[in-house]
Amino acid sequence: MSRIKVGLLGIGVVGGGTWKVLTGNAGEIERRVGRGIEVVAVAARDLDKARRLVGETVRLTEDGMSIVRDPEIDIIVELVGGESVAREWIMEAIAQGKHVVTANKALLAKHGNEIFRAAAEKGVMVAFEAAVAGGIPVIKAIREGLAANRIQWVAGIINGTTNYILSEMRVRGVSFEEALADAQRLGYAEADPTFDVEGVDAAHKLSLLASLAFGIPVQFDKAHIEGISELAREDIAHAERLGYRIKLLGVTRRSAKGIELRVHPTLIPAERLLANVEGAMNAVLVSGDAVGPTLYYGQGAGELPTASAVVADLVDVARLQAADPGHQVPSLAFQPNAMVDIPILSMDDVVSSYYLRLRVEDRPGVLADLARILSDSHISINSMFQEPHGEADADIIFLSHQAREGDVNRALEKIQSLPFVKSRVIRLRMENLL
Amino acid sequence: MSRIKVGLLGIGVVGGGTWKVLTGNAGEIERRVGRGIEVVAVAARDLDKARRLVGETVRLTEDGMSIVRDPEIDIIVELVGGESVAREWIMEAIAQGKHVVTANKALLAKHGNEIFRAAAEKGVMVAFEAAVAGGIPVIKAIREGLAANRIQWVAGIINGTTNYILSEMRVRGVSFEEALADAQRLGYAEADPTFDVEGVDAAHKLSLLASLAFGIPVQFDKAHIEGISELAREDIAHAERLGYRIKLLGVTRRSAKGIELRVHPTLIPAERLLANVEGAMNAVLVSGDAVGPTLYYGQGAGELPTASAVVADLVDVARLQAADPGHQVPSLAFQPNAMVDIPILSMDDVVSSYYLRLRVEDRPGVLADLARILSDSHISINSMFQEPHGEADADIIFLSHQAREGDVNRALEKIQSLPFVKSRVIRLRMENLL
Repeated sequence: MSRIKVGLLGIGVVGGGTWKVLTGNAGEIERRVGRGIEVVAVAARDLDKARRLVGETVRLTEDGMSIVRDPEIDIIVELVGGESVAREWIMEAIAQGKHVVTANKALLAKHGNEIFRAAAEKGVMVAFEAAVAGGIPVIKAIREGLAANRIQWVAGIINGTTNYILSEMRVRGVSFEEALADAQRLGYAEADPTFDVEGVDAAHKLSLLASLAFGIPVQFDKAHIEGISELAREDIAHAERLGYRIKLLGVTRRSAKGIELRVHPTLIPAERLLANVEGAMNAVLVSGDAVGPTLYYGQGAGELPTASAVVADLVDVARLQAADPGHQVPSLAFQPNAMVDIPILSMDDVVSSYYLRLRVEDRPGVLADLARILSDSHISINSMFQEPHGEADADIIFLSHQAREGDVNRALEKIQSLPFVKSRVIRLRMENLL
Repeated sequence: MSRIKVGLLGIGVVGGGTWKVLTGNAGEIERRVGRGIEVVAVAARDLDKARRLVGETVRLTEDGMSIVRDPEIDIIVELVGGESVAREWIMEAIAQGKHVVTANKALLAKHGNEIFRAAAEKGVMVAFEAAVAGGIPVIKAIREGLAANRIQWVAGIINGTTNYILSEMRVRGVSFEEALADAQRLGYAEADPTFDVEGVDAAHKLSLLASLAFGIPVQFDKAHIEGISELAREDIAHAERLGYRIKLLGVTRRSAKGIELRVHPTLIPAERLLANVEGAMNAVLVSGDAVGPTLYYGQGAGELPTASAVVADLVDVARLQAADPGHQVPSLAFQPNAMVDIPILSMDDVVSSYYLRLRVEDRPGVLADLARILSDSHISINSMFQEPHGEADADIIFLSHQAREGDVNRALEKIQSLPFVKSRVIRLRMENLL
């Protein structure tokens, strides 16, 4: 069979990795696909640097649009990132009837509905395994491997930067700022780490996972997002003493009233596999009604792991690129006409357990007052820990049973205004997960 | 589009689960596939029992061959197990040009090459996700999700019975016999547990994983197999004190000289995720040259988890059942004409680290003699632990660096014949895995 012709837009870290994997493993890949996959054109900003990597035989240009419109090319791989040029090129590729492979989670999180709709109308595939959890084939697992299931929930460590920072804070007892500086020095965090540490990157990925799991539109704009920059090392230490680890989790769950879609630091029992995912690694738990909980673990970023996912998508698309669209796996797992618009649940209606920490004056009656406010708000306490702080104060930690977050917020407002409460009340969510 | 018509051979535990998942999640599945998947005929031994499950509208028969030969039926799902009737029915289904979904690992491990060859000649798919690690989509991960990679090794806990027994032995400190009796009482082990506890079932699955990972024929007959029935609780306890857990692992690895294919109890560092897979759960680590190590975890057996995998295969096959064979994913991941016959490595040539335990007379010179024999055989010692036993004896544990198994065996023969050695030398392999 003839070779599949690919146009590569962007040849930075992931683009370069994709080139290396496609050429380095060309034999192994062709043994699987039955035909070669060949990059025939590359769009690059630095043509000299690109030339050194790809050699003389590949067409190089700064003009991605000329690749997108080249009728010789079967599949477009978009790895330039960002939302402006990437969006134009992808939309034009779809208009040209070309299949698209991309790692661009920010673009898909914000403009995925428009992109996937256009692709469905043209009968082309938009594949994005590399957009979530790097090389881990978790999108394929949800979309195909668990296709028999009504998916119940997905919970994952889907940002390596924050997981690295949290691991360092726990193991070495350092502050967020110190761990971040380390992560930057080692290349795990960018110079401006906002998107990672504030949970935005994880929310991009989570909104894609939610769409794949439940057959709903991509709704990044409705995700609840809290990062880890405010997280105190004391809470990591307290959590550890109580048998928990704190991870930045993306959680999406189907409940009777709607879909939960939330990213926040979360206490997980220390014996859970997810609690033991350390450093920059990623892991995603997916629970289906037939299969029960399943976990997928691996490197969530980096040149070659991400390229592994890009090339896996290329292999899938190459196999089916000339097939009838009815034979294709839908980009978002569900048939475009079978998507449903289940509402995203307000955080007030989310039910979770809570870790609450506050500093109070150490005098009789304090605990009774706190307990009464919590109980009046339907929050039942699982356990309580108290330790003296200085001469006159005490730190109190409550671990609650499951409660509505709206009730918790109302109770915390009351508690915060009590005269004997001397600190902001720290409120972290807890997930049992299995 | 018209509904896909399925013939179900066998409606025991997994067959019943398949029926339940297909009917219970019919809506969710059709939202994904774009067409219904319908069981139109069932072969059962107990027709009355089957009738109660499937109702009045489905054709029931004891004669599986009549289903296999029914021209109305698109896909055959074989869930009768065993190797005689199942093999005949599958071979006839292929001859009839029908696609096959099966969970029959024993059959595929022994007769897979014949079955896959016949399927390739007829251009039909034989899908078997349910044959390995139950509901975990690990076959799909290796075959498709990691298609960009040269797979380096696969190591997995792929038998829930033995993992349950080993967890019980470690946590409760009981003997193999006690843990097995518990497992039988709870339904995790069969009345005749030989296939599970002696590692045969794990080797069936491992030989399929090796074929998928490396593009080699299925070679169960060449697997090295050791079970856990001889494992002493002392060794589990010693391992734990030294920071290891003992798991029954299936390991297959590509080395310069050939493919390792081995099932045996294995010491794993306790902090590894794989070491923390407890109870009847399964997990498989797959390492590729681009992606690095990845892990897949979930329930490896049971009615609904296994049915989840059967139905996922059905969805895949249903999508492509009318497509050109060139669009299909090859059953064994590699194109049939691209399989290579890399030799399976003799155990003598396998390189591993070793845990050695022996009882000796506690007198000067013993350790020197042992150390010299090991050193003469090119086995270098990483650490040594000694504890007195009674008045005159001592137990010695060596942990070795990497060594050739042939060298270890030679050394152990010499050690075993020494006059001061008072026990059989216990030899367990250790894997670092990451």
